[in-house]
Amino acid sequence: MFSEILEKVKVTTPLVHCITNYVTVNDCANILLACGGSPIMADDIGEVEEITSVCNALVLNIGTLNERTIESMRAAGKRAAALLHPIVLDPVGAGASKLRTETALSLLREAKPAVVRGNISEIRALANTGGGARGVDAAAGDAVTEANLKEAVAFAKFFARHAGAVIVITGAIDIVADAGRAYVIKNGHSMMAKVSGTGCMLTAVLGAYCAANPGDTLAAVAAGVAAMGMCGELAYQKLTGMDGGASTYRMLLIDTMSKLDGSTLEGGAKIEQV
Amino acid sequence: MFSEILEKVKVTTPLVHCITNYVTVNDCANILLACGGSPIMADDIGEVEEITSVCNALVLNIGTLNERTIESMRAAGKRAAALLHPIVLDPVGAGASKLRTETALSLLREAKPAVVRGNISEIRALANTGGGARGVDAAAGDAVTEANLKEAVAFAKFFARHAGAVIVITGAIDIVADAGRAYVIKNGHSMMAKVSGTGCMLTAVLGAYCAANPGDTLAAVAAGVAAMGMCGELAYQKLTGMDGGASTYRMLLIDTMSKLDGSTLEGGAKIEQV
Amino acid sequence: MFSEILEKVKVTTPLVHCITNYVTVNDCANILLACGGSPIMADDIGEVEEITSVCNALVLNIGTLNERTIESMRAAGKRAAALLHPIVLDPVGAGASKLRTETALSLLREAKPAVVRGNISEIRALANTGGGARGVDAAAGDAVTEANLKEAVAFAKFFARHAGAVIVITGAIDIVADAGRAYVIKNGHSMMAKVSGTGCMLTAVLGAYCAANPGDTLAAVAAGVAAMGMCGELAYQKLTGMDGGASTYRMLLIDTMSKLDGSTLEGGAKIEQV
Repeated sequence: MFSEILEKVKVTTPLVHCITNYVTVNDCANILLACGGSPIMADDIGEVEEITSVCNALVLNIGTLNERTIESMRAAGKRAAALLHPIVLDPVGAGASKLRTETALSLLREAKPAVVRGNISEIRALANTGGGARGVDAAAGDAVTEANLKEAVAFAKFFARHAGAVIVITGAIDIVADAGRAYVIKNGHSMMAKVSGTGCMLTAVLGAYCAANPGDTLAAVAAGVAAMGMCGELAYQKLTGMDGGASTYRMLLIDTMSKLDGSTLEGGAKIEQV
Repeated sequence: MFSEILEKVKVTTPLVHCITNYVTVNDCANILLACGGSPIMADDIGEVEEITSVCNALVLNIGTLNERTIESMRAAGKRAAALLHPIVLDPVGAGASKLRTETALSLLREAKPAVVRGNISEIRALANTGGGARGVDAAAGDAVTEANLKEAVAFAKFFARHAGAVIVITGAIDIVADAGRAYVIKNGHSMMAKVSGTGCMLTAVLGAYCAANPGDTLAAVAAGVAAMGMCGELAYQKLTGMDGGASTYRMLLIDTMSKLDGSTLEGGAKIEQV
Repeated sequence: MFSEILEKVKVTTPLVHCITNYVTVNDCANILLACGGSPIMADDIGEVEEITSVCNALVLNIGTLNERTIESMRAAGKRAAALLHPIVLDPVGAGASKLRTETALSLLREAKPAVVRGNISEIRALANTGGGARGVDAAAGDAVTEANLKEAVAFAKFFARHAGAVIVITGAIDIVADAGRAYVIKNGHSMMAKVSGTGCMLTAVLGAYCAANPGDTLAAVAAGVAAMGMCGELAYQKLTGMDGGASTYRMLLIDTMSKLDGSTLEGGAKIEQV
């Protein structure tokens, strides 16, 4: 199934409108191209509705939000919602400032995203269940582990029902959940945390995966999460033969996405429905 | 001739003021350094006139334009025009939104750029001859091919006369035209489309080429277009021996520009005057 | 001593709040991760005080300053100063425009940074002793050489006393000075000037080094400057075996920082107290 989901992206080249942070925006653009999508970044209030109308998905990432772009995210979100385009929200740093938490919550209410992807601290901040963020990283005490996995899945399903969205919690173990079903995904590599923006890149990729696979958002998202995780693994394998460091690894991540095919994904995905 | 044009950039190190998008700005800065120029990015209305005054060229790229930076582009454009600095305009996404089309047209009228570089859909949108953009990419139906090349060259010359600028239409086949003369350039590689911002990078490089070669803008632009295309070819040759993907290719593009010399350009340029 | 300073960064993972330019921001984020710190970029006036409060250092880089972010830098600077967090100021392009010079001077007065890092032209512009910047690069005539080194060190100490900050002047020879003591550091490689943002990256790294080593800012800064210089040297050594260019070198710089350990730094640092 995941094979077809991936190939669908390459065949349809979905156009993904991103309003995202200026830190990792270039990597988001390049990984969108790499996975088979086509990026367009536009954040002025005078054009976001028009731009999003010609696209197939909208990605809202609050990583370097400001007063001006918050308004643009709202306007684009409303238009995309009205057009039934899939919206993916990345609440970067929710819990680290009131502005981030409130902006993410208002986008959740108004734009009704199909998918919300964050680390456990960000998602907990939105669910108002604690969530002690450490900047843009999850707090160590929040981490999803084998020991608390069942509980974390239940929380993801609960919040998915509340938010009306597929919830993606990424970390050493990834959870993808809607109100009724959940996937646990164990692809990925710890080295991904040494590259700025692997979360943002995944969020962008999810925009393309959802746009290309409108029938089953949960499966599309699970496939996208597994694909990114596999890129992390395969890039690490390659890195070990190269004497490279964190920046080479960043390049290999995007390289791998540009070469990943459906059968490799199907064969390597470590996914379990729970 | 192209050899001397390239070497002139390295000898004079032109300072290029860029008001450009935040997606590909780092690549623009690095490829400017690589080709022998020196970049400065500045977009606040309180300094753009002063900054552009100490520079040798101005690059205006509307890739992530906003209300604030549009005003800065206007002010910088007027000042650069008054100082007779070459201005290169990149109308990213013209045709994809009214804001982009109108901003590009107003910059064309007010700043009177020496060069306008875009894909065929963007240039057609400015010429008001259709131009069905697909986001920031050219529409497939617009593509310049061997079959419609003569017509496309005639259109480029016509629009060059109308705009009072050298027009650069890039794609699988590139056209560089002023009102009377045109070059067709067949360097480049399809892999360039898998890297975000190769068009933006070329636009930045053209700023340096024009500044360093004030005598003949058409030839300077043709040389810059051929140089970028050759980087695309040579980078691809190198990539094939490396098992890399799209991100390695991006790095090789900039690497190659940093090592390209005049004789290599002269020997490899596939240019025809038409 | 430098070994312990470097290891302290890796052990404490200081959170560094950066308000920085959009040209090199991604490299700043990635080199912060590489050296052992953790970056957070936030520039909206509605959150900068809150964000900086949960961080361990603040980096203010005026590379693409604008009216909005200047206010945010001021607010964050005041809050960080009140919390006694180390602040590192990078006056990119001071001397190239009145806005840059005045903004840097006002941040120097109001935020009282612990460290100011710039090239010689930028630092001279702040000290009002000439400083003929060429865009964001130092003017050739300003360069610190063996011939004028003694004079340059005296100037750095003088300005350190005046500014109440550790002054870092980077170039072929680097100077780190407070009012009473100074280090001359001769690590680094000329190839670093072919990569956009090596200065910005160093500034970001200094934020992490100062936060992790509150006891002795001068030594922490000297260690950070030597570490960046050694990355430049080691990356160049590696590049020579690879047939790469400027972009490969950029990657190797960050790679090397992610692998640099204390004993390598201790063994390779070319530092002299003067």
